[in-house]
Amino acid sequence: MARQQNRRRLVSNELLEHSARLFAAQGYANTSFQDIADSMGISRPALYHYVSNKEEILAALVRDVLERVVEILEGVRDRADLTEEARVEEALRQIVVNNARNTTRFRLLDRSEPDLPAEIAEMHRQARRRVLELLTGLIEDATSAGRFRPLPARTVALGMLGMANWVAWWYRSGTDGDADSVADVLVDIAMTGVRRGDDRQVAPGPWAALALIKEDLTHLESALSTALDPGSTQD
Amino acid sequence: MARQQNRRRLVSNELLEHSARLFAAQGYANTSFQDIADSMGISRPALYHYVSNKEEILAALVRDVLERVVEILEGVRDRADLTEEARVEEALRQIVVNNARNTTRFRLLDRSEPDLPAEIAEMHRQARRRVLELLTGLIEDATSAGRFRPLPARTVALGMLGMANWVAWWYRSGTDGDADSVADVLVDIAMTGVRRGDDRQVAPGPWAALALIKEDLTHLESALSTALDPGSTQD
Repeated sequence: MARQQNRRRLVSNELLEHSARLFAAQGYANTSFQDIADSMGISRPALYHYVSNKEEILAALVRDVLERVVEILEGVRDRADLTEEARVEEALRQIVVNNARNTTRFRLLDRSEPDLPAEIAEMHRQARRRVLELLTGLIEDATSAGRFRPLPARTVALGMLGMANWVAWWYRSGTDGDADSVADVLVDIAMTGVRRGDDRQVAPGPWAALALIKEDLTHLESALSTALDPGSTQD
Repeated sequence: MARQQNRRRLVSNELLEHSARLFAAQGYANTSFQDIADSMGISRPALYHYVSNKEEILAALVRDVLERVVEILEGVRDRADLTEEARVEEALRQIVVNNARNTTRFRLLDRSEPDLPAEIAEMHRQARRRVLELLTGLIEDATSAGRFRPLPARTVALGMLGMANWVAWWYRSGTDGDADSVADVLVDIAMTGVRRGDDRQVAPGPWAALALIKEDLTHLESALSTALDPGSTQD
């Protein structure tokens, strides 16, 4: 019994892989149920044992791809051992690695959008919205905590998702090395891009923000006296 | 004569716009020549006056989208008035703005890949390769000039292209404001992310000090709104 279930799961997984590859290569509309059976080396009736139509496969693929990203973001959000900044960093790293490992499914998802039945299309839209919402929330937290520069959180989230998602369009393990090294570089660029300078790391809350302004007014004072005093040189 | 040419160009442009929208919404395979004629409010025979088949339209669209990005990169590469760093910045800004203004065509291009006839598919691959090559070259120049941190130029280029290209997947002028403000934020993140540390230290002079204070005031503003209005979120 357990053995049969196990076999069923293995076939389902392989079925999704094969279908994703076919849909991505020749388009969902141009792929027949027969093509899928052929690619797996089984008969059409045998395939009906697992799924009843193409749509069912597409629905499973769509659910799969974004569900995984939502799980990553929810998992990281609940990590009490990480700072607000480290949560964004960890989420971004996991999303990049996930996308590098599922390039075919990810591109397929985008490509098949016009073919999605209304119900699945709506599920897809909601999952996309949820991903953006969760990442924007993590970025807002890091910004309020004084770890990130004050930038519009939604645009930052979409910029980071762009870097991470585009991986599915170009990553080839042969050319680009392992997914972790790629993630190292992209995470480095994105985090350096939004982080406050180390010397300017501040505590949260309005008092800390006021303290920072005082510090910078002192800096302005000295910059002005240097600029206005022709005897001294600018550093 | 000139008037007729002018009219022809206007119709061609509108034809591309309408076709791009239809292909993106319902897929290239599911769009008929008749659909295109209908969307323009003309007859099928009248449409044949301008193009002889769907494929020809798709080819024109593909050529158009990436050709424009290649032009941007070649134009910037030849700008002697800009530093190596400013060239990358300018290219990235123009690509973001271009993508924000052509979201439909850009997504269509990606989506229709499985439908492209061999010749057009090859042209498309070459244009993509050329875009990556040109941007990687600009990044290598800025790195050799000591302006960028020593990161793998290809991965940096693909990270930047990801940020810029993804704009076509999310940008809506109603929600996100004008394309230039979006470009400001994305370019800021990407350039801060790759620039050498020296440039990230507090720059000398009163203007830099004032800029820091402005940043602090924005931070204070967001800290205050969080502190005083815990129910609301930032955006």
